[in-house]
Amino acid sequence: MTSKFTGLGSYIPTRTITNLYFKDYEFLNENGDALQQTSQVTAEKLKDITGIEERKYVEPELVCSDIGLIAAQRALADAKTDPETLDYIIFAHNFGDVKFGTIQSDAVPTLAARVKHKLGIKNPKCVAYDMLFGCPGWVESVIQSHAFIKAGIAQKCLVIGAETLSRVVDLHDRDSMIYADGAGAAVIEVSDSDSGILAHESASYTLNESDFIHFGKSYNNTHDPNVRYIKMFGKKIYEFALTRVPAAMKECLEKSGESIENVKKILIHQANEKMDEAIVHRFYRLYGMKVPEHIMPMTIQKLGNSSVATIPTLMDVLRNDGIDDHRIAKGDVVIICSVGAGMNINALVYRY
Amino acid sequence: MTSKFTGLGSYIPTRTITNLYFKDYEFLNENGDALQQTSQVTAEKLKDITGIEERKYVEPELVCSDIGLIAAQRALADAKTDPETLDYIIFAHNFGDVKFGTIQSDAVPTLAARVKHKLGIKNPKCVAYDMLFGCPGWVESVIQSHAFIKAGIAQKCLVIGAETLSRVVDLHDRDSMIYADGAGAAVIEVSDSDSGILAHESASYTLNESDFIHFGKSYNNTHDPNVRYIKMFGKKIYEFALTRVPAAMKECLEKSGESIENVKKILIHQANEKMDEAIVHRFYRLYGMKVPEHIMPMTIQKLGNSSVATIPTLMDVLRNDGIDDHRIAKGDVVIICSVGAGMNINALVYRY
Repeated sequence: MTSKFTGLGSYIPTRTITNLYFKDYEFLNENGDALQQTSQVTAEKLKDITGIEERKYVEPELVCSDIGLIAAQRALADAKTDPETLDYIIFAHNFGDVKFGTIQSDAVPTLAARVKHKLGIKNPKCVAYDMLFGCPGWVESVIQSHAFIKAGIAQKCLVIGAETLSRVVDLHDRDSMIYADGAGAAVIEVSDSDSGILAHESASYTLNESDFIHFGKSYNNTHDPNVRYIKMFGKKIYEFALTRVPAAMKECLEKSGESIENVKKILIHQANEKMDEAIVHRFYRLYGMKVPEHIMPMTIQKLGNSSVATIPTLMDVLRNDGIDDHRIAKGDVVIICSVGAGMNINALVYRY
Repeated sequence: MTSKFTGLGSYIPTRTITNLYFKDYEFLNENGDALQQTSQVTAEKLKDITGIEERKYVEPELVCSDIGLIAAQRALADAKTDPETLDYIIFAHNFGDVKFGTIQSDAVPTLAARVKHKLGIKNPKCVAYDMLFGCPGWVESVIQSHAFIKAGIAQKCLVIGAETLSRVVDLHDRDSMIYADGAGAAVIEVSDSDSGILAHESASYTLNESDFIHFGKSYNNTHDPNVRYIKMFGKKIYEFALTRVPAAMKECLEKSGESIENVKKILIHQANEKMDEAIVHRFYRLYGMKVPEHIMPMTIQKLGNSSVATIPTLMDVLRNDGIDDHRIAKGDVVIICSVGAGMNINALVYRY
């Protein structure tokens, strides 16, 4: 007995923000000094460094729970399931609802409760909660659903991941260009068939890593230091991820009993294309192998890094519209993995 | 096989705020009009309406994760357990870290990751996440730990509940007087003995209730409407709780197989003494019984409503210093129950 996805949905925001959108920004370094290169050059170089050509932002009137709702509605329709039969609604995010032009995070009531309200679900036994775990929050919520199913306290869960990072970016920090908005969701149900979760792995590295991604003041020293934004130490994250993520993927694959040759796709958190490629390179190197062709479908070029939303969005896009010549067939084994603030890492080995 | 508490800890903030602290506040109604009675009279009447005589606020230099850490350290010491052996750290809160004099919630990295960092835990397999579920968040985190233990993916969890409601109160809303700061924590482990969780029950009422507790603008109409505070519809909550909480307690007790006569204590979320008394009265009425004497130990008189922290704090105080002539002996069956934003309800039947 395991758990499997029975429905997927996503919401890709409508505002397309190209790299050149940032060409007139006043980018500064951590000390508040102007970067040596113009912002136009910084914006133009972004694609080479991260693979990102453009990203999506939500319209001003939308907040995180709104786009989570749309993804949820699509996942429920895809699963052809009665929402009243859900045992859990888990909403993974990190900043709650932040209205356009404001700085407060709002998660009271929880975003899961807001979605449940708007879905019109009457059943009080459908438990709605939010969970925070950095970018790996959606995958971790899938693992929690799986635990509830294994423990016999749930049979069907709706797991939503949504974030509006455009509402928490420092306009003076070039890392702002990486961040995007997005939402994805899945229905997860008990499975007695061969398909579903074969193994899972989670880790929190906090001893030296807890501030690698944090909420900090603007690089513009004239701004109010009490107004804070998402901040990251990119180089530290890069080095951390390259060591820790391949090891977690390998450990998860070993738990599953599947062979590396059977892995058809790696669905990885869309943080940075170059970093993701390096992670997968290192992963295969652990097996003395070269990276197989067409192993890693990517959306980051057009969608940027939407935190918790990248993986469910990737899975949904892959299934609906396809990505290049990537195809997943029934029976295929994939590795799903994520890394982010905490620093947290997780991985799933999943058979379609 | 079940799960039981093996350690308890709490942190009671050092600043005592009496009701008369509020006597010079400019309390307004929802429309922004001055209340008919003076704030001195409003403050003096609070005790009759809610049982609250005083409450605790944290010192200005502390944030929510700081006090959660202290409670966690005490629970770990009480459990005489090596923190490196923890499988999970779950931190229940609703507003994250809000620095004194600021309005932003900060939960990146998670408060659980901050605590794990400060505890110096090296083991990356100790998964640290935050969960939001209104005031019932701590009890729900206990239920999640229990699920992980039942699913075989955990053996030992640290569950923290902490909140600094003093950082999110509207000074023009008399409901502000109810809210307090506090932190509690427990270590929960797999149990093969008779003691531990006998049954649990959770519910989310969101169809008509999701805004009963919410984040809203000040009652002072001249204030920035984009700066928001914890707000509640007290009468609606009262009526809701009186119907739904006794029913959930009864359902949980029936699941446990224990008789009503065996219930020695009811440990209830400290929201409002009068409401809590009415809930317990209704609960016993469902069995055609009068409320037994000394069934419900209370801390609200001196500690106010500290959201997720009330129940672990109550359990810890009861064990260490006692409350009036309340005593819990090994083998005693208790009902633990909570209600809050969502609107969420949960209950545990637990044998000491």
